[in-house]
Amino acid sequence: MTRKAEVGVVMGSDSDWPIVRETATTLDAFDVACECRVISAHRTPETAAEYAAGAARRGLKIIIAAAGSAAHLGGVLAAHTTLPVIGVPMKGGALDGLDALLATVQMPAGIPVATVALGRAGAVNAAILAVQILALDRPALAAKLRKHKTMLKTKVRQANSRVQADWEKKDA
Amino acid sequence: MTRKAEVGVVMGSDSDWPIVRETATTLDAFDVACECRVISAHRTPETAAEYAAGAARRGLKIIIAAAGSAAHLGGVLAAHTTLPVIGVPMKGGALDGLDALLATVQMPAGIPVATVALGRAGAVNAAILAVQILALDRPALAAKLRKHKTMLKTKVRQANSRVQADWEKKDA
Amino acid sequence: MTRKAEVGVVMGSDSDWPIVRETATTLDAFDVACECRVISAHRTPETAAEYAAGAARRGLKIIIAAAGSAAHLGGVLAAHTTLPVIGVPMKGGALDGLDALLATVQMPAGIPVATVALGRAGAVNAAILAVQILALDRPALAAKLRKHKTMLKTKVRQANSRVQADWEKKDA
Amino acid sequence: MTRKAEVGVVMGSDSDWPIVRETATTLDAFDVACECRVISAHRTPETAAEYAAGAARRGLKIIIAAAGSAAHLGGVLAAHTTLPVIGVPMKGGALDGLDALLATVQMPAGIPVATVALGRAGAVNAAILAVQILALDRPALAAKLRKHKTMLKTKVRQANSRVQADWEKKDA
Amino acid sequence: MTRKAEVGVVMGSDSDWPIVRETATTLDAFDVACECRVISAHRTPETAAEYAAGAARRGLKIIIAAAGSAAHLGGVLAAHTTLPVIGVPMKGGALDGLDALLATVQMPAGIPVATVALGRAGAVNAAILAVQILALDRPALAAKLRKHKTMLKTKVRQANSRVQADWEKKDA
Amino acid sequence: MTRKAEVGVVMGSDSDWPIVRETATTLDAFDVACECRVISAHRTPETAAEYAAGAARRGLKIIIAAAGSAAHLGGVLAAHTTLPVIGVPMKGGALDGLDALLATVQMPAGIPVATVALGRAGAVNAAILAVQILALDRPALAAKLRKHKTMLKTKVRQANSRVQADWEKKDA
Amino acid sequence: MTRKAEVGVVMGSDSDWPIVRETATTLDAFDVACECRVISAHRTPETAAEYAAGAARRGLKIIIAAAGSAAHLGGVLAAHTTLPVIGVPMKGGALDGLDALLATVQMPAGIPVATVALGRAGAVNAAILAVQILALDRPALAAKLRKHKTMLKTKVRQANSRVQADWEKKDA
Amino acid sequence: MTRKAEVGVVMGSDSDWPIVRETATTLDAFDVACECRVISAHRTPETAAEYAAGAARRGLKIIIAAAGSAAHLGGVLAAHTTLPVIGVPMKGGALDGLDALLATVQMPAGIPVATVALGRAGAVNAAILAVQILALDRPALAAKLRKHKTMLKTKVRQANSRVQADWEKKDA
Repeated sequence: MTRKAEVGVVMGSDSDWPIVRETATTLDAFDVACECRVISAHRTPETAAEYAAGAARRGLKIIIAAAGSAAHLGGVLAAHTTLPVIGVPMKGGALDGLDALLATVQMPAGIPVATVALGRAGAVNAAILAVQILALDRPALAAKLRKHKTMLKTKVRQANSRVQADWEKKDA
Repeated sequence: MTRKAEVGVVMGSDSDWPIVRETATTLDAFDVACECRVISAHRTPETAAEYAAGAARRGLKIIIAAAGSAAHLGGVLAAHTTLPVIGVPMKGGALDGLDALLATVQMPAGIPVATVALGRAGAVNAAILAVQILALDRPALAAKLRKHKTMLKTKVRQANSRVQADWEKKDA
Repeated sequence: MTRKAEVGVVMGSDSDWPIVRETATTLDAFDVACECRVISAHRTPETAAEYAAGAARRGLKIIIAAAGSAAHLGGVLAAHTTLPVIGVPMKGGALDGLDALLATVQMPAGIPVATVALGRAGAVNAAILAVQILALDRPALAAKLRKHKTMLKTKVRQANSRVQADWEKKDA
Repeated sequence: MTRKAEVGVVMGSDSDWPIVRETATTLDAFDVACECRVISAHRTPETAAEYAAGAARRGLKIIIAAAGSAAHLGGVLAAHTTLPVIGVPMKGGALDGLDALLATVQMPAGIPVATVALGRAGAVNAAILAVQILALDRPALAAKLRKHKTMLKTKVRQANSRVQADWEKKDA
Repeated sequence: MTRKAEVGVVMGSDSDWPIVRETATTLDAFDVACECRVISAHRTPETAAEYAAGAARRGLKIIIAAAGSAAHLGGVLAAHTTLPVIGVPMKGGALDGLDALLATVQMPAGIPVATVALGRAGAVNAAILAVQILALDRPALAAKLRKHKTMLKTKVRQANSRVQADWEKKDA
Repeated sequence: MTRKAEVGVVMGSDSDWPIVRETATTLDAFDVACECRVISAHRTPETAAEYAAGAARRGLKIIIAAAGSAAHLGGVLAAHTTLPVIGVPMKGGALDGLDALLATVQMPAGIPVATVALGRAGAVNAAILAVQILALDRPALAAKLRKHKTMLKTKVRQANSRVQADWEKKDA
Repeated sequence: MTRKAEVGVVMGSDSDWPIVRETATTLDAFDVACECRVISAHRTPETAAEYAAGAARRGLKIIIAAAGSAAHLGGVLAAHTTLPVIGVPMKGGALDGLDALLATVQMPAGIPVATVALGRAGAVNAAILAVQILALDRPALAAKLRKHKTMLKTKVRQANSRVQADWEKKDA
Repeated sequence: MTRKAEVGVVMGSDSDWPIVRETATTLDAFDVACECRVISAHRTPETAAEYAAGAARRGLKIIIAAAGSAAHLGGVLAAHTTLPVIGVPMKGGALDGLDALLATVQMPAGIPVATVALGRAGAVNAAILAVQILALDRPALAAKLRKHKTMLKTKVRQANSRVQADWEKKDA
């Protein structure tokens, strides 16, 4: 049985799905249930408003919004809820995604969108940030985050061993 | 008695009013009636949706939207109407207004915002563009536009005379 | 028999045609007749001036100008007419099209160019904007625009269903 | 008696204090206790590491980091904690703050910094975002956020009345 | 009696005159006669076309065009003449003049505009470049250029002496 | 027998040759003799200085300098001659060639570099600009330039016919 | 037997290794021993701190840090040592590497990072800069640098011969 | 008596002196003798070449070059020496100094310029970097650097105390 979603993962177009899937997969790896939706701030504005306005009532804690170009999705959702909204600017518009980044992050005072990195790194980090928020009162989840951090360290150390060995073998 | 407005001039904040007033004043100089509103895409999103959705019914022909930073106002209004929406990006955010320009112009296929120049020149040009649209089936208005264009020419010629004279008097 | 064109679709180079064709195709889908021209602001400036100056007399209502790099085409046409001119900045110059965007949008007070998004999205949106303008006094066209907007919504909803299903099947 | 801080407000230099004070003041308006610190990622890196590493143990829930130029503060703190870290890029470096924005937001996968707008708007929004996070399991705080949102609406409506009146009186 | 102008110094607006005057003054210092005109590419396009088309016949050798924002002036003049056209992008538009720079320099193959630096340095350099061109078959003018270059060297050496002395006196 | 070169075409690296060849080819099409050199401002600075300093004496009239990244070549050559120096910024550095453009065009007062467009268009235009300069006292060359301009017009008209036909055949 | 490393070559990710290898190879060509490490400023911050803090004691003279996106690696290492730290910004983040460049170079007063060019050129130049520093009191190394500079000249001259010949043979 | 300079501090214009003086003052605070020169890469290129070529012979160890706009000074000096050259990009050109930054840092492989931050922070950091290099074989200088780093820490801690007190007194 599907657990009730705590995180709403929303994207402006299904062409974003291959990258945004990493958000969902990362949440899943932390056993945080999410739902995935395509909602366009400009083409389905009523759905966007309803989705955000009803999110808390439906049990969502956090909304993640991924969009490109004039990336209004995060801002439009944030306008209709007081839940934390995390914005993932997508590449592919003008200036290698700078348009999406600025349109997501430069929100007016009172209506924040928590913006993460452009593209794939941002898709993962939106999930991690959501988990960090949910972990504030769930010690088990906090423990998973610390374990994840240890795993990241391990990966860097393994990469270090490979590079170090690759260089040193030149003298062998 | 106030005539019925044909153009809705909307701004995201009353701090934009000193510049946006030029939009209204320019429309007024062409005897095109407008109404001026402060509507925030993020702080009063329901008002934005209602305003745009009801605009045609209320007799508006064109909506002009001026906003800065993550300038979503034009896009949010365009999402709720099929009237032409003209966007004026305001300076003052990041990168000398580039954030507002990109957030206004980079709309997805299907939902255009007719974007004009940043700041004061854009505030005037939004009005001229609105008049050009309304003039399509009003010969009298088209005549005024041609007269306005002649006046612009005259001003440039007068400026030319001043500069020409200023330079030539050095040899006198 | 070809109907009389109401929209002039002008591009600076025939290398723009594959993208600008979407402007013409979109207009065609709304049964708005257009003519397509290659006119260079710099290589055929007299043609550009004549085209714009004679446009209203020939029955054109709107001119759409697509150009890249130092994209002067929209501005040059706007200088010679009081018809609305819509500018489509093309990618491929410096900075991923920023040169074309700024050269198109930053017009001086008095001579607006209604600028839409860079590249393909802008090519479609120039057509939609033209239809929105023409629809102001044609209820049938306005109805088509509303239908088009409904179709956009439907497409987003279908995309949503696909993504939602794709994610949920992981738990199946 | 001072309540125990839940939010750590950290800035890279005391020259940021006049703007960062708005973060603290906004938190205070929501009765969320915060502590304010000057910690430099580059000049006091050990303090930065210790502060972040010990934050959860000391009862902090969220860290807000404001910094300019090569704004590493948010990233350095995020490296040493699994608490949510909110980054406020400060203006004043190169390109009107673009350096601080990119250095704050472009974090690698695994270590997010929740980035808000440049400068003053960001300083306020960092606080609002922190309150949104803390409100997830505090209904009273969530109620305050909704009230705050209503107050923002009221302010926009009042601004609207002023502008509307200012324009309409021209016909009086 | 005024000598016949060899260089046409054209600016898009008389607000540019305080800076463009340095172009005229510099030409004057080399005894190269110039005429100064305000011609707008967008407001007086016919004048622009006529001016450029008739320039060679009237004895002009070089046209210098200074303009800001969507700076089309150089390009429009170059379209109507085969004389060398030198473009001076003026600051004050978007992005500290980047719009003017890109709109001036990014001309299509076949129609060059010789672009110099933004603002004051460019205003001087447009004149120097014009003199360099005219000097190609005037040994006396070439000698003046060499003398000017020597004078620049002298000024740098004097500045060097001042700075060197200013620093060394600290040990006195 | 090779005629004496009037234009020195210099590039910073032989990797620029495929594009810079268009400069030489274009000059050749106008029967203007040029020589082609690889000289690096940073790797062979003495050669750069000698080349520029001796250029006039060797009969060169104009130097064209193509370089990328921190494109100092034009500036270094201009420092050692009073001949006109034309700069072609090459793409491939940071920001799609913006580094090369700014490093070429932003010369200090007194030492201009006549900058043309980035990459291939600039490579052609540097040649055209050089021909325009040489044509000032060669009526035959001026006539060729006018013919070239006519040819450009013809090409645009042919492209126009193709596009016009391609669109109109849809109704056939 | 491996000699003791004098230069620590550190990269933020092993995906940087193919480019950073050129740093190591260049140092090797000058017989300067280096060690190569993968250390992440954000994932292994303790390792970064320890590496930099212990570098001088372990006999390192210079640290080279290559990183992309929010490239904090150079800054974090510089915070923990008084050895010279050379930063190589890697491409691949936002804006073609501008994020990495600004995050590396814009360090606050007191904690410099000696920044070199983006990507491959920077990878080589970091090594050359390190050799220049080490050569200050090693005449043999300084001699190698002069020889290297001569080799660069030779390569440019050979390239020049090829291009010159390629062009001239067209007349043969 | 003036000690022999070890660091040559060169600036492109005496208008840079108020900021570049901080480089000299900082070196002086470390008892590192420097000489200060105004040398223009473009106006006094021979002096630039001679200065760099003779620097090592005259006992200089490091050259610091501060310049703005098309900032070629560092690159020109680096071309004529194998000593380390540190570049300080000055603000005031286009794009808030981005032109100077890119022109300084984007050097081709083989000829590095060690670039530091824009403006005042860079002026100080060029000096610190020079001291770090010189300290490699001078334990006394290295000790001063460590003391300087301690002093920076102390200043941050004092600033922290002020801010902490300022905030906490609100509850008093």
